[in-house]
Amino acid sequence: MNKGRLFIVSGPSGSGKDTILAELFKICPEIKFSISSITRDMRENEIPGEKYNFISKEQFENMIKHDELLEYNRFVGNYYGTPKEPVIKAIEDGCDIIVEVDVNGAAQIRKEVPDCTSIFILPPSLETLKVRLKGRGTESDDKINARLSCALDEIKRAEEYDYIVVNDNLFESVSELCNIIKLDRLKTDRNINLIEKILNE
Amino acid sequence: MNKGRLFIVSGPSGSGKDTILAELFKICPEIKFSISSITRDMRENEIPGEKYNFISKEQFENMIKHDELLEYNRFVGNYYGTPKEPVIKAIEDGCDIIVEVDVNGAAQIRKEVPDCTSIFILPPSLETLKVRLKGRGTESDDKINARLSCALDEIKRAEEYDYIVVNDNLFESVSELCNIIKLDRLKTDRNINLIEKILNE
Repeated sequence: MNKGRLFIVSGPSGSGKDTILAELFKICPEIKFSISSITRDMRENEIPGEKYNFISKEQFENMIKHDELLEYNRFVGNYYGTPKEPVIKAIEDGCDIIVEVDVNGAAQIRKEVPDCTSIFILPPSLETLKVRLKGRGTESDDKINARLSCALDEIKRAEEYDYIVVNDNLFESVSELCNIIKLDRLKTDRNINLIEKILNE
Repeated sequence: MNKGRLFIVSGPSGSGKDTILAELFKICPEIKFSISSITRDMRENEIPGEKYNFISKEQFENMIKHDELLEYNRFVGNYYGTPKEPVIKAIEDGCDIIVEVDVNGAAQIRKEVPDCTSIFILPPSLETLKVRLKGRGTESDDKINARLSCALDEIKRAEEYDYIVVNDNLFESVSELCNIIKLDRLKTDRNINLIEKILNE
C-alpha cells in the first residue's frame, strides 16, 4: 500500500488558515488532522480532542523525555507540541495528515520527516492583515501591534516552505490547498508500485 | 516578473500523451509548446512549425556545434532535438512551456534546466498498452512488439520523473496535468516577490 504524506500548514495570525482548514476538512474528510498536545487551561469554546488534547505539564515532560513529540515549544509557561505516534501511524496507514504549526515547529518537523510538504498561507497584503487583526475587535492596540510584529517575523520565514497560498479569496485558497494535497498523490515516490505492477505484468 | 517553468512530458507510444497534450492546449492556451527541430522528411499530415520544424542535417549539425540544443538524438540517420532559445525565452517571459521528449531527452534536459518539473504518462496496464498499440491497425506484429519493448524500456525509467499521470481516463489525465502545471505556480521559488512585497509595504 502507498504511504500517506505529512503536510505542514503555517501562516500568521490573520492569514485565515483556521478558516481554510475548517473548509478543507469539510470537502476532504479523508485527510487527517494532527491534534496538538498542550498544557494550558482549556478555554470556554474549546472541545478536548478537537484541535487540542489538554494534558498536564508532567505528562508533557514525560513525552519530551521519551522522544514522543515531532516538535514542541514552550510559551508563557505552557507547552505546545505535536505527538509523533498519530502522525507516523497515519502515514503508514496511507492517510494524508495535516499538522498546523508555526514556523519554528515547521522547521523542527522538517528535520524529523524530511519528505513532508509544507504550505505557507500568506495574507494578500499587509493592509489586509492589519484589517483582519483589528477586525476581531477584542484586543488592545498594543496586542494588535504585537500580533502584527509576530506575523511579519513569520512571513520572513515563508521562503522555507514548498508552496505559498495567498488567501485573497477563501474558496480559491481552499481549492488550492486541496489540490496541493491531491496532486501530491501523483508524485513518483508515491507511485512506484504502479510502475512495478506494469513491468511485472 | 515571475519566471515561467519548463515541464517535461514523456510517455511511451500508446500512453496517450499526444491526445492529452492536444486537449491540454485547448483548455490552457497560455501554456507554450516547444517545437522540435528534426531532419527527417515531412509526412503527409504534418504542418511545419506545428509540432516540428523541418531543417536540413547541415542546419542541425550547426545547432549542435553552437550549443543551441537542450537535448538531441540521432535515430535511423535523422536528428531530433529541442532548440534552447525558445524555451529559455518562454521561461524568462514568465510563460510555462512544455517539452515532449523521450526518457533520454528528459535526462539531458534535467542537466541543462535542473528546476524543471517532469511528468511521465503511464498507461493503466500492460494489457491496455498492447490493445492501444494494436488498435492502430496499421503495423505488423513485429513492429508492435518492437514498440512494446521500447515502451517497457521507457516505463523502467519512469522513476526519474517528478509526477506519474496514469492515463486511464482522458479527462482525468488532462485535468491532472493541467493542475500540476497550475499548482507549480504556487511553489515558493516562484512567489518570493509576493513575500517581499508584504515585508516592504
